[in-house]
Amino acid sequence: MAEFPFHISATDGEARTGRLSTQRGDIATPAFMPVGTAGTVKAMFLDDVRSAGADIILGNTYHLMLRPGAERVHKLGGLHRFMGWTHPILTDSGGFQVFSLSELRNMKEEGVEFRSHIDGSLHFLSPERSIEIQSDLLGSDIAMQLDECVANPCEHGPAAAAMRLSARWGERAKAYFGNRDRQALFGIVQGSTYPDLRKESALRVVETGFDGYAIGGLAVGEGHDAMCDMISLTTPLLPRDRPRYLMGVGKPIDIVEAVARGVDMFDCVLPTRSGRHGQAWTWDGPINLKNAKFAEDDQPIDASSNCPASRDYSRAYLNHLFKAGEYLGPMLLSWHNIAFFQAMMAAMRQAISAGRFEAWRQEMRGRWLVGAEDQSG
Amino acid sequence: MAEFPFHISATDGEARTGRLSTQRGDIATPAFMPVGTAGTVKAMFLDDVRSAGADIILGNTYHLMLRPGAERVHKLGGLHRFMGWTHPILTDSGGFQVFSLSELRNMKEEGVEFRSHIDGSLHFLSPERSIEIQSDLLGSDIAMQLDECVANPCEHGPAAAAMRLSARWGERAKAYFGNRDRQALFGIVQGSTYPDLRKESALRVVETGFDGYAIGGLAVGEGHDAMCDMISLTTPLLPRDRPRYLMGVGKPIDIVEAVARGVDMFDCVLPTRSGRHGQAWTWDGPINLKNAKFAEDDQPIDASSNCPASRDYSRAYLNHLFKAGEYLGPMLLSWHNIAFFQAMMAAMRQAISAGRFEAWRQEMRGRWLVGAEDQSG
Repeated sequence: MAEFPFHISATDGEARTGRLSTQRGDIATPAFMPVGTAGTVKAMFLDDVRSAGADIILGNTYHLMLRPGAERVHKLGGLHRFMGWTHPILTDSGGFQVFSLSELRNMKEEGVEFRSHIDGSLHFLSPERSIEIQSDLLGSDIAMQLDECVANPCEHGPAAAAMRLSARWGERAKAYFGNRDRQALFGIVQGSTYPDLRKESALRVVETGFDGYAIGGLAVGEGHDAMCDMISLTTPLLPRDRPRYLMGVGKPIDIVEAVARGVDMFDCVLPTRSGRHGQAWTWDGPINLKNAKFAEDDQPIDASSNCPASRDYSRAYLNHLFKAGEYLGPMLLSWHNIAFFQAMMAAMRQAISAGRFEAWRQEMRGRWLVGAEDQSG
Repeated sequence: MAEFPFHISATDGEARTGRLSTQRGDIATPAFMPVGTAGTVKAMFLDDVRSAGADIILGNTYHLMLRPGAERVHKLGGLHRFMGWTHPILTDSGGFQVFSLSELRNMKEEGVEFRSHIDGSLHFLSPERSIEIQSDLLGSDIAMQLDECVANPCEHGPAAAAMRLSARWGERAKAYFGNRDRQALFGIVQGSTYPDLRKESALRVVETGFDGYAIGGLAVGEGHDAMCDMISLTTPLLPRDRPRYLMGVGKPIDIVEAVARGVDMFDCVLPTRSGRHGQAWTWDGPINLKNAKFAEDDQPIDASSNCPASRDYSRAYLNHLFKAGEYLGPMLLSWHNIAFFQAMMAAMRQAISAGRFEAWRQEMRGRWLVGAEDQSG
């Protein structure tokens, strides 16, 4: 595989902190990757994403292949140049959106045929084509294997079949990817909420061998406790010396509990999506700035933050911006939330380094776990 | 009136350049004021408005009195603190929006009763209440007298009646305003497109006496030439030593021609509104980034600009952002357009100072006047 050093500098229980090195820069772990779905982290300037602390962002293969098109992005110099982000980018495989957004899916061993949710045009995605798009055309630093994502709940039979298809697709993705100096490929563990399937999947994916290992198919409605159980049984089966990535997660409490179980990387639309809808994540839990109680609240969201969006605008002003439907409301709250998530990751890295992660985690559980199931984005 | 020094440093024909001093900072003239309708310059951070070159922005009394409410803004420390802008703010009187946006207007000598276009609630605006809102509650640096705005075209009789009512309202505004050390009040010349009414209005407004003089009721469909004619006959009737403000204007060519006729200040939603709809104003005229011809154009809007939005993003990327309906499209193009308008004002100030304004104007007329009537926002 590629030269992709992962140095773990400290551990505390199962939690670890370290540094994943890429050709475009280092990623401090545990890391949260803001999602830049269609070549933009929604409602944010990338300078602010970077200064908030993000070392890496995520791009969505499904969205980019449909619009503006992977070949077009390639012609324009690749995704980094297209969007103006010089740091690492991880791209997903497109699979999750094919199974959640597109219409008329025709699943075969070879791959999946689907219609664009934008214009109904017909497209095909295979393990090979997904890597071609991610690594050859978009030029992402970390590519994900194509997998088949099942809904939750899912019967054992279909979940097993999808997991095994994903395992075969992982082998094909690796074969197509080959040896690359400057790019990495991650495999994905699937298996819905079935411990036997998760174990089988983890063993097969590790046997295939990747630069890093993702846990997919969680945060799809199974609930916080079931998610934690699946993580607990999966991470011990993954190589200690390779990064572990929990896909699409999540709420702050979910991230903290996953870090406690040895996960290193996360992505989620939650901070930006919440921000567009008036919700701010804070050390005291989420608050909704649209609430009338903030209409005359002269205090900022967080006076102690070094993020201008968190520190320099009153809750009353934010309340007004959302009531008036102004762009600046989503701009400021997306920024605040991204900065908060990055601050949370930094706090975890420091706590792990200092050997006080368990105390930090318990404090956050006390703040965030009550009603965690209601804190949807 | 208030201590509000206006120093003209150079003239070139009727055009002048100088500096209007306020307690919150100096305004280099000719000046373009970005419009911050509801307490935000739409889709922009105020730091970027400032660094683009804006010395002053405009706030809309009508919008702010309806939401969040003038008393609420006052309770929160005034408009500057509420929105986080420490430089000068000019507020309009609310009149223009009452006559263009609100429902169920009941016009009387005393003032105008109207229903909010937002929630149908009943409100009242008089010359006195307008100044109370602007100067006492919002705390703007420059307030405008309430006037009655007529549609275009308008018969001579109603235009004369509205102009004379506006003149009486100007006297009442001045009486209520009284003597203030740190705030200014501008009168407004009305009279539709009738030279006799414009002259009568100018004489009456000057007789009343204000810190500055606005020309209102233009850029409402009368066309570029008629607008220029009205400006040409008005500015010679206004005091040379006081700032002149052409309200709601406008397209670059309109601004250049008004400067050539001795106007010092402008405001318009055009740069931000155009920006939200994909239109970029450039030295070569307007371009629409939604146009398919830009889909693979790797060049920025203006590589020679020092505005990041103009310089650091390809037209292809902007084309993609608008096609995908992403926030970042309006964010970048509003920023670009505000920076372009400010660069245009700076170029005029330099040309006037250097005694080469007429040559500069003719060059811009050659670039912009053809099809100027089609360059709507």
